[in-house]
Formats: sequence, structure tokens, C-alpha cells
Amino acid sequence: MNTTTTPFIFIRTIRTCLLLLAIIIAGAAMGQESDSLFIRKMADEILLRSSAYENLRVLTKQIGPRLAGSSGMVKAERWGAAALQAAGADRTWMQECMVPHWVRGGQDQARVLVNGKSTTLDVVALGNSIGSGKSELMAPVIEVRSFEELRQREQEVKGKIVFYNYPFNAAFVRTFQAYSDANKYRGQGPSQAARYGAVGVVVRSMSHSADNHPHTGSTRYDSLYNKVPAVAIGLQDADRLSGFIAAGPVQVGLRTHGYFLPDTIGHNIIGELKGSEFPNEIITVGGHLDSWDNCEGAHDDGAGCVQTIEILRAFKALGYVPKRTIRFVLFANEENGLRGGTQYAEEARQKGEKHVFALESDAGGFTPRAFGFTVSDAQFQKILQWQSLIAPYGCTEFSRGGGGADIGPLNRLFNTPVAGLQPDSQRYFDYHHARSDVFEAVNKRELELGAVNMAALIYLIDRYGL
Amino acid sequence: MNTTTTPFIFIRTIRTCLLLLAIIIAGAAMGQESDSLFIRKMADEILLRSSAYENLRVLTKQIGPRLAGSSGMVKAERWGAAALQAAGADRTWMQECMVPHWVRGGQDQARVLVNGKSTTLDVVALGNSIGSGKSELMAPVIEVRSFEELRQREQEVKGKIVFYNYPFNAAFVRTFQAYSDANKYRGQGPSQAARYGAVGVVVRSMSHSADNHPHTGSTRYDSLYNKVPAVAIGLQDADRLSGFIAAGPVQVGLRTHGYFLPDTIGHNIIGELKGSEFPNEIITVGGHLDSWDNCEGAHDDGAGCVQTIEILRAFKALGYVPKRTIRFVLFANEENGLRGGTQYAEEARQKGEKHVFALESDAGGFTPRAFGFTVSDAQFQKILQWQSLIAPYGCTEFSRGGGGADIGPLNRLFNTPVAGLQPDSQRYFDYHHARSDVFEAVNKRELELGAVNMAALIYLIDRYGL
Repeated sequence: MNTTTTPFIFIRTIRTCLLLLAIIIAGAAMGQESDSLFIRKMADEILLRSSAYENLRVLTKQIGPRLAGSSGMVKAERWGAAALQAAGADRTWMQECMVPHWVRGGQDQARVLVNGKSTTLDVVALGNSIGSGKSELMAPVIEVRSFEELRQREQEVKGKIVFYNYPFNAAFVRTFQAYSDANKYRGQGPSQAARYGAVGVVVRSMSHSADNHPHTGSTRYDSLYNKVPAVAIGLQDADRLSGFIAAGPVQVGLRTHGYFLPDTIGHNIIGELKGSEFPNEIITVGGHLDSWDNCEGAHDDGAGCVQTIEILRAFKALGYVPKRTIRFVLFANEENGLRGGTQYAEEARQKGEKHVFALESDAGGFTPRAFGFTVSDAQFQKILQWQSLIAPYGCTEFSRGGGGADIGPLNRLFNTPVAGLQPDSQRYFDYHHARSDVFEAVNKRELELGAVNMAALIYLIDRYGL
Repeated sequence: MNTTTTPFIFIRTIRTCLLLLAIIIAGAAMGQESDSLFIRKMADEILLRSSAYENLRVLTKQIGPRLAGSSGMVKAERWGAAALQAAGADRTWMQECMVPHWVRGGQDQARVLVNGKSTTLDVVALGNSIGSGKSELMAPVIEVRSFEELRQREQEVKGKIVFYNYPFNAAFVRTFQAYSDANKYRGQGPSQAARYGAVGVVVRSMSHSADNHPHTGSTRYDSLYNKVPAVAIGLQDADRLSGFIAAGPVQVGLRTHGYFLPDTIGHNIIGELKGSEFPNEIITVGGHLDSWDNCEGAHDDGAGCVQTIEILRAFKALGYVPKRTIRFVLFANEENGLRGGTQYAEEARQKGEKHVFALESDAGGFTPRAFGFTVSDAQFQKILQWQSLIAPYGCTEFSRGGGGADIGPLNRLFNTPVAGLQPDSQRYFDYHHARSDVFEAVNKRELELGAVNMAALIYLIDRYGL
């Protein structure tokens, strides 16, 4: 090679590289631009013509509570299948699974007896808990602030009702941290108390609402110890009860009626859009259709269900033909069994399905702020490139960790990358599992914006894979 | 210089530089760490022991509406001074200003006459508007979607009531954009209609709420044209009225009673913490104390007032001694005159005060998401360094542009850097200037988190200046 041609070749190479780079950048920019335009179209479609809010009205007001095994569950399943069909699914089916069938059995009641004077307390029996029997369970009450205090005072527990008065810590900015911190008292509290001979349990509700509604939720009896009746108590009554106890010994009376019927048949409700290029690659988006029996389950998780249906409706309304197969799933029995999510993954295993991504909305129909991803480093890097496309619609934060209870089994069985919508969390535990979780507590725009952000993420994953 | 010593000097210089750099970085890190700890303390103080929510209850439920000139205004001023005193102000005073005194004068009424059948419409007279006179103002109605349509159809306007049915655009993700887009019909609509001979105006409410409450707000008559009565109508009734009009000619009857009394004395309510190092440098934080007369003014702007008081309370509770003088200001008459904010800046000019920063909260007591800054490039760069300290509490976004109506005059007169708290905006226009803007529409934690973010920003500006 002579010294005069070297610079020339060098310059030519650089020129070629620059040209290629320009083409790549232009291509990427065009891709980003058309993605940006399509996401804007989806946002317009959802914000201007959504059926999510009206669907939520029907689900909460016409169907209402829909705990696994209840007649509400059956009605909700039928409604869900019809709604997915109406939204434009290529096909819709009901995937059978056996679900537990816990029944509250009557009106939960509690009172505190102070110097012979009886005061009613606003309580709700914990999900899965046993009834107090035919007569009222009346016993002296002992208040503890923690499991440590319970252990320290174990000698005093026998024959008593344990009152776990553990505060829902308002200092956590993200309220789910307060929930993680406190919910062991609901889940393990009854058995931990029974271990030391307690005959019943009252748990301070996991909430920092300003009202007095008690908040239910699952409890899990440890087979080593006696099952004892257990209720959650509203915050104002928790403070009142604590005040009575501070003034002198008091008794609490409980009447609860919970029991299990045999497992029964429930269903995941699934609508599908078949992929045009990679039909065997399945993307799942969903929420759970069941709710506790004491509320309309508007935020938990009617919101996730109607958002899921809305994404399907918007895709169809805009004529979007997905590359991959997208499943819109209303899961069964998240609240007290997770049988729906478990069955969904199990059947995927049996059929050898390839699940490439799953997204769940189960944190309320509030303004979207973030997505949390349980994905590999490489996948997260890819996802981060889409952040600027989604941020204008609310989810400005993409973080590691997150998903949803119902899609957890997919992640555990197949290492499927999963994500969860993380709306603003400040109000969630005002309503969670309480009678105040009603349609009126959901804001139309906040609900719709959640669907917009989810639709954008599903669209990008469908187009570019992970 | 000989060539052997040069590298040595060079290395020594580099070493010195690195050492200095290390000291600077360590110092900055320590500063950031202690700032981070102090902000965490303020958050705990506010989230665990705030008086903001209880103050808001008193202001909205015991005092209620407090339009400039009303007896509610006088009560609110007294309450505000006492609250600032109780929160620990070094001194509290009432800064006098003359305020307009518009009076609604009675119950606003409207009905639509279709084929001799009368149907009531839910309306509220626009602020500053005139009354319809002793008898009902009954006239044929013409519906227009825009000022362009009004001009195109100007021949049809004479003697009619103009119904501006301009939609509040739900496609804007940030609802304040929809407000900016639509509110000219409220502000200029009556005079624009009168220009072509209209005798009255009905304006579609600036809201995308799902209810039917009408939303008031200021209108400004142009002195070139006749003043005509003007009302806002709820969204459902707007659609209903539009439906009637589509079916054939209809008449609308209006009864409104608005009038002005002579200007009267109002006050900015000011609490102060004197600066320990730079007492002449004044930082202002505030909201406006007045509200429309048809609501409790909980979000607009009771929230901003009680957040302002809460920041003072938290500073005092933690024994924080500011370097600069901090003024906590509850401004008078934002809604229909801005006399309070104008007077505050005017008196600052007369006294030669040095105003180094001002912050306002006047966008509702919702979850904080951003601060908007009207500052120089250099100031913005400095502020951006604090973003990571504030983001954990909600304001993850720092953007250019923003402030508040009441602190606008400071910015215009002195070029004072100003900022506005920008909470999540989805629900704001559900309540704005409507009877639904009540205490119950405010969430305790969202309100408090706003105060946390504001306190953090004020603290950092006090410590480091701008």
C-alpha cells in the first residue's frame, strides 16, 4: 500500500461509516417517530373514547363483589368473556381451575365491654378465618404492638384475645412499603397468637385512611396451632380500643361466621389477538377478576381488568395487527389462593407455550407513575430506550423489580420477563380490601392513563421483542 | 525550568489538585448527606405529625367559602394569622390591600324551554358577572363550538343567548393545557358574544369531571361592549342542552343576581421567620386564602395555605434556624383581582426589600410530581443539583417555566426567581371552582407530601441561596 492512497481509503471508509451511521440513526429516529405517533394515537383513542370507566361501572355496580367461589365470581366471569369478545378478541375462552370457596357466613360483629358498658367496634373477619361458633366469643383482651412484645408477654396471652395494634407507617413515602412492613400481623398474627393460647385476634387495619372502615385480606393458619377467629378493626376504633385498654382491663366480644365450602370451579378469562409474525411468542397482560366479598373491588382489581380490556379495544379500534400473540387475561382467585395465575402457568408448561413477556396492573386505578420490571440486565437496557416514548403519559420511572401476583408463576416457571404498572400509591390503602373500594373512588382519567401507559409498553414489546 | 523538574512539579500539582478535589467532593457529599438526613426528618415530622389536614378541616368546614370582600374572607384572615402564630412565626402581620367585592346576590337559575316544557339546568353565574335583572332573561339560544363559529354566524347572534360548548380536551395528558386551551370562553366569551348583540351567555364548564357540577371563575367584561349575564353549565346539562338545540330551536331562561359593592379592605396574612445570617434576603412561600363563594376552596387553594403553614410548623418543630428570612404568606384575592400578590410586590418595592426566591402552591393538594421554575439558566443548573434530594418525596421532575399567580408580580417587578409546585393534575379540574371542591376531596397524605417537597426546596434555597 503506498502512502498516498492510504489517506484516501481512510477517508472513504470514514465516509462510508458516517453514511451507514446516518442511515441507522435516521432509521431509529423514524422508528421512534412512528412509535411516538402511534402511541399518541392510542392515547387519544383511550382518553377520548375509552370504555374502561363504563366497564368498571358495570363490573362494580351491576356485579359487585366477586370472591372466588361466589355467585359474583360466576357473573363476573361471564361478563369478562363478553367484554373481551366485544372489545375485539380473535377468540375468547375460559380456562378452568379449581378455586377455594371461603364464605363469610354472616355479619361480623365486635364489641368492647368496659365496666359493663358495651361499645360496638367496626370490624371485618379476615379472609379464610374461622367463625367464632354459635355464641359470642368473649374474652379479656391484650394489646401488643409487635410479635416481639407478644413473645415477651407470652405468659399473659392464654385465654385472651390478642389485639395487634401495629401502626401502618405513614413515614414510608411509597405506601406499599408500609404494607409489606405491617401485613405479617394479618397473615401470621392469628396463628402466632394461638401458639401462646390466645382464643381470638383483632388486627389493626393495614391502612392510613382517615376513616374507620376495617380492611380484610387473607390470613394463613399455621397447622401447628389452633385456628382462632380473627378480625380487622377500623383505625379510629383501634385507637378507641387502645384507649379503653390503657384505662383498665377490658373484654372484647367477637361474632364471626367464616367457613370453607369444597373447592369449586373458577376460570381465568382469556381474550387473544393472534400474532401475525411470531404467533408462538406470547405476551400476557392482565389483572385479577376476583375481589373480596366486602367491597366492589373497584381499585383491587376491577381497574386492572378494565384497563386490560381497554388495551385490546384500542388496538382493534386502531387496526393494530400484533406481530406476537397477545393474551388479555382476567385472572381468577388472586386474593385467597392464586389458583388462576398458577393454572395459567401450569397449562403453558403442559402445552409448551413460549411466554416472552407478561404485564399486570394490580395496584389500583390511580395516575400511572412507573413500571417495575423483573427482567435481565440486557432486557432492562432495551426497555430503557423506550422510556422517553412512555414518559409523556405518566410512567416517568422505569425501575428494577416488580410484576404481579398472577404473573409471578410465569416468571418462576419459565423466567418470563414480567412487569407491573405502579400507579401513584398514596390512596391505595385507603380503599384496599375495605367497603370503600367502590366505583366512586376511581377517577376516570387516572384509570384511562394507566391503560395508555400499559398499551404503549405492550405495543413496544410486541414490535421489538425483548 | 529544566526538563527533569517539570514532571515532578506536574505530578505534585496534579496530586494537590486531586487532594483538593477529594476534599471538595467529600464536603459536597457530606453536605448532601446532612441535607438528605434533614429532609428525611422534615418528611417524618410532616407525615407523622402534620397539622395541615386538621387546619384544612377548620378552614373549609368552619370557615368555608371566603371570596374577597365576604365575611368568610374576614374570618379566614383571622384564622390564618392565628394559625401562623401557632405554627411558630417570629412575627405575624396583616398586610392591607383594597380588594374587589363581587356578590353573587342569590341563587343562580337556568332552564331550557322546549315545546313549552321547562327543564332546569345546573348553572353557576361567572364571577364578576352582572345579574339578569328583576325578571328572568329568556331568549332563543345559539350554540357555537368556538369563537370562529361565533364570527361566522354573527348575523344569527343578535338578541340571543350564546352557548359556548367548547370541549375541555381530554387528550391533553396535563390537564392545565386543556384549561389554557378552553378558558378564553369563560374570560372573553361574554363580551365577544355581546359584541354581536347577544343578551346572555352560557359556557360549558372547564372540566372533564364525570358529574354535573357547574364550574365558576372570573370573567372579564370588555368595556367596548354591553355587559351581559353569563353562567357556566355542568357537563351533563351542556350535552343535554346541545341535544335539545340539535332537535330544534329552544329558548333558555337565566336568572342571575351578581353585582359589585365598593372595594373593601382585605389582607395578605404573613408569618415570618427572621434570617440568622442574611436577614435582608427574603424567601416567600405561599398560597392564596380566598376562594370562590360556591365551594369550600379545599384544593383551590386551602391546600396551598395549610401546606405553607405546615412548612413553618415543621421548621419550628425541628428547631431549624433559617439563614435567610422566610415569609409564609396567605395571599388575598387571587381569584378575581390579584390585589394581594400585587400589593405584596408593591410594598416590597416601596421598602426596597430584596426578594431572592418565591414558591407558590396553587394547583391542588394532590400528590406532588414536579416543580416548575422561572429562573435563569445558572440558577436552574444549581437547582438541578438538588433534584436527587427531593425526588424520593415525589417531585421527580424539575422543569423550566412555572410559578404562581400571587408571586408573579415579584417576578415581574424584581425578576425574583419563582417556582410553582406541580402536583398530579388529573383530578384538579374535577373540583376547580365547583361545589365539589370540598375537604373530602383532599387526601391527607397527598396534601402532606406536597408540604414535604415544598419544605425541602425552601430549606435548600435557604441554605445555599440561588
